[in-house]
Amino acid sequence: MRQYSPVNFSVVRIEGDFWRERLETVLTRTIPSQHRQLVANGILESLTIPKPAPPLRIPRNSHDFTTQIFWDSDVGKWIEAASYALSHRRDAVIEGQIDEITDWLADAQLPDGYLNCWYIGREIDNRWTNLRDNHELYCAGHLLEGAIAYFHATGNRRLLDIMLKYVDHIATIFGPRPGQKHGYCGHQEIELALIKLYGATSDKRHLDLAAYFINERGRRPPHYFDVEATMRGDNRADFWAKTYEYNQSHKPVREQDKVVGHAVRAMYMFAAMADLAAELGDNGLKQACEVLWHDVTSRQMYVTAGLGPSKFNEGFAAYYDLPNETAYAETCASVALIFWAQRMLNLDLDGHYADVLERALYNGALAGLSRDGEHYFYENPLASDGRHTRWKWHACPCCTMNVSRLVASVGGYFYSTSDDAVAVHLYGGNSAQLMVGGRRVTITETSTYPWSGKIDIVVNPEIAAFTMKLRIPGWARDASASVNGEAIDIGTNMQRGYLCLARTWMPGDIVTLDLHMSVERIYAHPSVRMDNGRVALMRGPLVYCAEQVDNPATPIGDIRLPRDAELTAAPRAGIFGGAVTVVAKGAAVDAAEWQDDLYRTSPPAGKAALWTAVPYFLWNNRQPGQMAVWIPEN
Amino acid sequence: MRQYSPVNFSVVRIEGDFWRERLETVLTRTIPSQHRQLVANGILESLTIPKPAPPLRIPRNSHDFTTQIFWDSDVGKWIEAASYALSHRRDAVIEGQIDEITDWLADAQLPDGYLNCWYIGREIDNRWTNLRDNHELYCAGHLLEGAIAYFHATGNRRLLDIMLKYVDHIATIFGPRPGQKHGYCGHQEIELALIKLYGATSDKRHLDLAAYFINERGRRPPHYFDVEATMRGDNRADFWAKTYEYNQSHKPVREQDKVVGHAVRAMYMFAAMADLAAELGDNGLKQACEVLWHDVTSRQMYVTAGLGPSKFNEGFAAYYDLPNETAYAETCASVALIFWAQRMLNLDLDGHYADVLERALYNGALAGLSRDGEHYFYENPLASDGRHTRWKWHACPCCTMNVSRLVASVGGYFYSTSDDAVAVHLYGGNSAQLMVGGRRVTITETSTYPWSGKIDIVVNPEIAAFTMKLRIPGWARDASASVNGEAIDIGTNMQRGYLCLARTWMPGDIVTLDLHMSVERIYAHPSVRMDNGRVALMRGPLVYCAEQVDNPATPIGDIRLPRDAELTAAPRAGIFGGAVTVVAKGAAVDAAEWQDDLYRTSPPAGKAALWTAVPYFLWNNRQPGQMAVWIPEN
Repeated sequence: MRQYSPVNFSVVRIEGDFWRERLETVLTRTIPSQHRQLVANGILESLTIPKPAPPLRIPRNSHDFTTQIFWDSDVGKWIEAASYALSHRRDAVIEGQIDEITDWLADAQLPDGYLNCWYIGREIDNRWTNLRDNHELYCAGHLLEGAIAYFHATGNRRLLDIMLKYVDHIATIFGPRPGQKHGYCGHQEIELALIKLYGATSDKRHLDLAAYFINERGRRPPHYFDVEATMRGDNRADFWAKTYEYNQSHKPVREQDKVVGHAVRAMYMFAAMADLAAELGDNGLKQACEVLWHDVTSRQMYVTAGLGPSKFNEGFAAYYDLPNETAYAETCASVALIFWAQRMLNLDLDGHYADVLERALYNGALAGLSRDGEHYFYENPLASDGRHTRWKWHACPCCTMNVSRLVASVGGYFYSTSDDAVAVHLYGGNSAQLMVGGRRVTITETSTYPWSGKIDIVVNPEIAAFTMKLRIPGWARDASASVNGEAIDIGTNMQRGYLCLARTWMPGDIVTLDLHMSVERIYAHPSVRMDNGRVALMRGPLVYCAEQVDNPATPIGDIRLPRDAELTAAPRAGIFGGAVTVVAKGAAVDAAEWQDDLYRTSPPAGKAALWTAVPYFLWNNRQPGQMAVWIPEN
Repeated sequence: MRQYSPVNFSVVRIEGDFWRERLETVLTRTIPSQHRQLVANGILESLTIPKPAPPLRIPRNSHDFTTQIFWDSDVGKWIEAASYALSHRRDAVIEGQIDEITDWLADAQLPDGYLNCWYIGREIDNRWTNLRDNHELYCAGHLLEGAIAYFHATGNRRLLDIMLKYVDHIATIFGPRPGQKHGYCGHQEIELALIKLYGATSDKRHLDLAAYFINERGRRPPHYFDVEATMRGDNRADFWAKTYEYNQSHKPVREQDKVVGHAVRAMYMFAAMADLAAELGDNGLKQACEVLWHDVTSRQMYVTAGLGPSKFNEGFAAYYDLPNETAYAETCASVALIFWAQRMLNLDLDGHYADVLERALYNGALAGLSRDGEHYFYENPLASDGRHTRWKWHACPCCTMNVSRLVASVGGYFYSTSDDAVAVHLYGGNSAQLMVGGRRVTITETSTYPWSGKIDIVVNPEIAAFTMKLRIPGWARDASASVNGEAIDIGTNMQRGYLCLARTWMPGDIVTLDLHMSVERIYAHPSVRMDNGRVALMRGPLVYCAEQVDNPATPIGDIRLPRDAELTAAPRAGIFGGAVTVVAKGAAVDAAEWQDDLYRTSPPAGKAALWTAVPYFLWNNRQPGQMAVWIPEN
């Protein structure tokens, strides 16, 4: 079922300036500072449970909830990100920190294997009584992903063994047998983690448990969350979100054809569904994924690949309802979209998946991390009056470690391989050691991508005959390619977004690719009423925005981009080490001309205005100010 | 201080088709159906209090509130509207209903004069302990306005006497003397009512009490609502709205220069301030009103003269923050804006006040009442996806009776008089018996306004020399006038929006006025970002909207109005008895041309589309559907 296999990030050495800078920032600043935040915010302390544990009932909020309930997941996600860092270079301090956490978790784990520090420390008698709200399996999933990553990075399997014991416990509690709970988590995540575990253990039970959670989800009657609420003595109608669409359990996953509810939950689930489709050859799951993919990308996705416009449910609203200033567009959701996109791409090599992956990576996800590596966006609006600024930390720090684990493993998204092909999805300077048909293929790419579309790839294969499949991005109006200086006709060699070069490769063969990178005006579907009469700018995979700091003379709300305005890409040495800005010979409202009237019969007069846009992911790194992605044309 | 005096609606006989239809609908359908609703919803029953009253503590909502607390005000407002109906023609059924209510109120009134049925029936010991939230003086104000209106309509003073006894009680409780409460109501209204009472009684104490409430408001330290909260044992920080801006008590009224908080509260207060400025010659209050007027009309008012975009506080948000689909724009707020505008206009005859008054009357307020007279809008968005529809009643029915009392007394807004002048603010067929300098002036106007701007006015004066001041609306690009067929030069005779005809008038003199009524394209201030690149249509005082029912072939979201589109006013016999529609030779998105992509590099293609707009106030009277006031230009 799976056409291609992903490549572990550890075999891809990032060498180009763009990702090198992000990666170094994450390794040297983000990972250590996140550990400091976990300490400062009491999250690590919460793992150290006095014995005997006090029967403490912590006050929760009006719908009986506390964010402390997912602190285990934050720890797990930090371990995962830190372990990816260790894969780049070992670090005794970080390893000591993970070992210390492992000690606490070992201490906390109950004899039966159960390991959720919130429940153990506070209300152990209530464990497994509220899967709908209380994130136990979600926390287990993130700790498990952390344990797997640490094992891969260091070979140290102590934490993994702890988690294997917990997984064994989970497998006794949940399943189809009589006396087992026929439940699943209100926040999907354990499924992904179990499939990843199966990749490490090849133990089919791990895959089966993941499949059980996915297939059981949303079955009725009775609905598991109803059963559970009744057993707690709760009125099921009291569920704050009112609908099980919130956690995608409103119907069995195979019957879902519209993307609804909490965005991160949805994306984690779809990623797991795509994984299961591949591992089990389950065509029903694959088809459900394809329908849902089309639904979300053609009706519900911001131009930044942000997902989930609504703050209320941290998720999806009506089709085409994509407000800019109030966009929730949680960083985690774009990160999770990347996970899903990668899995779809390996199921079925189609450039559309890679286009969305790249859009999410360079925009919706990357915006979540500041230039200094220690500030974050949780919400990613596409316009701001100046009040939206980066956080040093967040009461719910999920996004902080989602973006660090993404950047620390970014090389894993560049390539996929099959028995007879290498697919190149993303570009940027790197050296990769790939395996094709059991033989090594070394690829060395030189490029300043995404600032330029000029790409040189040197191939050093142990195997002679295989196909290089080079993605020609959907944004590229024009592209040219050559092998060893000999031009390749792209049109006749294209397959679903990939230029296919099937040949006998010799060491030192050079593929050059020139993806013509012009500044493009982007229009939204006319049903996105917020963007009617507005235009956004992209260059290559980067969405641009106008930020106040670059345009001190013109309020961002006043700038305009008439259809005939000249747009120029201009690298600026002074901005983040040479980011390419876009300079518009555009227009602006003539503020002096429109007096005090609120309404009048003549349109606002414009005046010529030169204004500058910067890549969206870089916004709010210099000073707070207004920002807009979608610019009125008149 | 007051330049002009308002004219009681009872001396203006409405004869033109436009207002005659609305008035007859209110008299024959709205007033009786509102009584039925007061019965059906238990509101009238709440006035009949068992003796002894049960010490019942009714459950309230999470911030200790119930809408039942203002049921007295709904009764008072219905009595007021019904009494205005009686002024048009007496009706034994309605009078019997009001007399029955009077019996209940007489029974309910405590020996000391106190008369709030909610507190008497439920928790009398708590009276006057929570002015901030519980509307006691607000309810008193509306009952008082009802009592005054009923007295004026019928001469029956029984209800008025009950209320005078209550006012006497209120005057012992509140005031500057030691032992009195130095408080004021969380919802302004009593002030207006007391000034109206002063107009009936000429008892200066009534005016003084109104002035006391206005002048005491927002004084600190300590703030009265803090004092009161502490006495109740509440934490003052628990106030749900968080800020006393909500009820305009954040600072003394004379220091307020920005319109904030709950829109209806604000408008009722400003109207009372303007009244007091006039009655007391208080220039400080007048100046505060002028600053606030400019603030709200130049930065915070919808093109429909709707006020208060936010549902959260039923009120004002940031400057220029005027979202269309989520506009709260409560009907009551536009009605109350009319009250304030009329008072400003009488303080200072300036057409700007009348322009806003007229805009609110024909749009924001009139939209609140259905064509059948028995359905209502509480919220008045300027765009809808089809889900916003009229209510048969409302849990908080304030708007229903605000619009019926407005329509039943609409003639009162047409004219003002002074010792030597008649000012004509509004047009439409009517006959009016006015007093100028103690002598009668009869005016008979023939016009189909607002469908046409052609106006004939026949003057029959007992006095010879006086000035007719005819408003030339701000929307009129061009106007011509004549007296007895002789053209008048408008330019040289204009004073602040009024054409001033000072002459010796003879019986039968005919003034003709032709206000050129073209379809106008309206643009919003560029800071109203929701309306960037969009245009609205007005013809005369009417704002238009595109409604789905008139445009079955084109989703309203798809219609466009290029700048060069031809616009034609077209009376349609089949729509509400000949409403003038606007037909646009405009454009629409070519839906077939834009395929599945959510984003692309070329703008949506348009196609020619003939579409129809109807007056905004008439929308949602045929069938539910999409609606938009602001139409994208491209």
